[in-house]
Amino acid sequence: MKTLAIIGSTGSVGRSTIDVLARHPDRFRVAALGGGANLEELARQAGMLRPELVSSTDPAAPAFLAERLGASCPEVIVGEQGAIAVATHPDAEVLISAIVGAVGMIPTYAAVRAGKTIALANKESLVAAGEVMMNEARRSGAALLPVDSEHNALHQCLRGSPHSEVRRLLLTASGGPFRGRTRADLRAVTPAEALRHPTWSMGPKISIDSATLMNKGLEVIEARWLFDVPGDRIEVLVHPQSTVHSLVEFVDGSMLAQLGVTDMRHPIQYALTWPERWESVLAPLDLAAVGRLDFERPDRQTFPCLDLGYRALAAGGLAPAVLNAANEVAVQSFLEGRLNFTDIPAVIEETLSRHRGGIAQSIEDVLEADRDARLIAAKAAQRVFQPR
Amino acid sequence: MKTLAIIGSTGSVGRSTIDVLARHPDRFRVAALGGGANLEELARQAGMLRPELVSSTDPAAPAFLAERLGASCPEVIVGEQGAIAVATHPDAEVLISAIVGAVGMIPTYAAVRAGKTIALANKESLVAAGEVMMNEARRSGAALLPVDSEHNALHQCLRGSPHSEVRRLLLTASGGPFRGRTRADLRAVTPAEALRHPTWSMGPKISIDSATLMNKGLEVIEARWLFDVPGDRIEVLVHPQSTVHSLVEFVDGSMLAQLGVTDMRHPIQYALTWPERWESVLAPLDLAAVGRLDFERPDRQTFPCLDLGYRALAAGGLAPAVLNAANEVAVQSFLEGRLNFTDIPAVIEETLSRHRGGIAQSIEDVLEADRDARLIAAKAAQRVFQPR
Repeated sequence: MKTLAIIGSTGSVGRSTIDVLARHPDRFRVAALGGGANLEELARQAGMLRPELVSSTDPAAPAFLAERLGASCPEVIVGEQGAIAVATHPDAEVLISAIVGAVGMIPTYAAVRAGKTIALANKESLVAAGEVMMNEARRSGAALLPVDSEHNALHQCLRGSPHSEVRRLLLTASGGPFRGRTRADLRAVTPAEALRHPTWSMGPKISIDSATLMNKGLEVIEARWLFDVPGDRIEVLVHPQSTVHSLVEFVDGSMLAQLGVTDMRHPIQYALTWPERWESVLAPLDLAAVGRLDFERPDRQTFPCLDLGYRALAAGGLAPAVLNAANEVAVQSFLEGRLNFTDIPAVIEETLSRHRGGIAQSIEDVLEADRDARLIAAKAAQRVFQPR
Repeated sequence: MKTLAIIGSTGSVGRSTIDVLARHPDRFRVAALGGGANLEELARQAGMLRPELVSSTDPAAPAFLAERLGASCPEVIVGEQGAIAVATHPDAEVLISAIVGAVGMIPTYAAVRAGKTIALANKESLVAAGEVMMNEARRSGAALLPVDSEHNALHQCLRGSPHSEVRRLLLTASGGPFRGRTRADLRAVTPAEALRHPTWSMGPKISIDSATLMNKGLEVIEARWLFDVPGDRIEVLVHPQSTVHSLVEFVDGSMLAQLGVTDMRHPIQYALTWPERWESVLAPLDLAAVGRLDFERPDRQTFPCLDLGYRALAAGGLAPAVLNAANEVAVQSFLEGRLNFTDIPAVIEETLSRHRGGIAQSIEDVLEADRDARLIAAKAAQRVFQPR
């Protein structure tokens, strides 16, 4: 029996995680559960999983859960302190960190300090605070297991191979809905068009990141910290079918690739059962049915966000946190019709140039850079925007 | 410094092996070298590698090498005893077993008995004598490392994963020069047409096996013994570009694939340096330049040799040895214009039906079945042949 804690349980990855657990009821136990403001879903999960502790971002949660769960209602803690208490619950061997956004960094960092094994779906923890997280993980003995399909694929390809035998990491990218278009084509793109992801079903923020290729810029940064490989040995390869989830090239020129269907429950289960693999009844890949896999270099002119990711990684320190915050603001502005698609990189670039930079010594430094960058980016977006 | 012995040094894999060694002159030493009748090549290799012992199939070898190498000429032993002495040389940590055909089984078996680590390119050792070889390897502690690109790929994919986590092995097949044709199309095929392999440059026997898909039937049998996975969990997938060299599906539905350029020096170096990987200056794979990878199910109607391989494996005992010998006779008959391409499976099928079968208890049993099957197959080929 493996005992887990989950934060972000009511989001997309959280719900997929609980679906995986439901397929192995005799092998997993959930000690602590942290969700968002979807109290219906949180009550359903708590009723099914029977955790000892629940947290929620919603102050109405204690009353709501008490009414729904009656005598079997567990302890409920509201807000950031609740998420931290769940993330560091003493019974949990593995934390699933699935809160979306910068707000997920604080409880994740608390779990890193507590030396937990963390199945990590919160991108910001590594994009914005990678250096701080990894330094602390080395000290505490925490292990970070990627849930993201690309990094999960790299983790699988690297099993049994020493770090010194790795030459390059190759992250695959679907190329998003605008692959093959030119920059001129993209000026008038609407949010609805940008949200139509060709292969994965995902939330709006990640879908837009996929359309701009910023998702790969962010993933290059994550890979750098997860696998301790410098940015100039991490490449991005466009692969529209998203069947090969990523590849590793070794020093002898040989490559290993991980392949699978596009279902997040696969990498989630891998991270939960590591260092073992457990049986899954999820559909395996039928490569003959897929039939064809294509690969091409990314178009860095049409999608400049990818190079902004490399640039922030090379600059180091607080630059990736600034990049991430500026991108969140720019994407939100675009989704709300207050920024054109092709101006997203301009806002990020301006924010990177205007932020003072500096080294990332603590999670507080990162959070401060995040806040400052949001203000700079919001102003930049306002100035840049020209309604169509 | 790793000390090696090589048998079959003057053949295709032998010469590629020596090319790999020449790229790491400070890390490999060759203690013993066994070649065929190409005495020019053998003298060149012996002059370069300075082994303590040389063997050759040619009785003229001692005099030839003495004249060419003068005072530095090593000990030379002719015939099977020579190959065995090379294969079991006490200084060698690793034997490269690269003799083509059934004749390679005897020195390979001697090395297995001696508990050597064997980089195995001789297919017959596992196709015909797999059960005997593996039983002996378990006793002696010998390790068999596949040089064949498909099995080498599986070995790489399986690193770091316990046997219990493997669901299926998927061997890729180029499909050969006749992929997409019908059985009727193939009746009038000439040896020259059949020898035109689309992706790998190989000897005539292996090229014809690739055109009939018998190469995959034989490889399924090899995989069964190398990785201890039953035939019904080994599949064949046609992949015309030969870029993915094979794949493993794990119990959780995830797949790992090994990819690389089609250059035998890659798997040879892997087998020689295992359990490490060493740097290679050979070209790595440029997947964006390859651009497209296709996968399809094999056409079992047009290429019945594949199913004959599965059938012989399921029958067990001496049946795979009979299959292999009948195939060698049928292919040779075809190459000499004494059998039509589409009659190759008929000859093999008839030989499998007529041979008495039985269990494989010793290498002598296997060699006897090999001899008997050749006689049966030669008669079958004569009877079946109708000149065009």
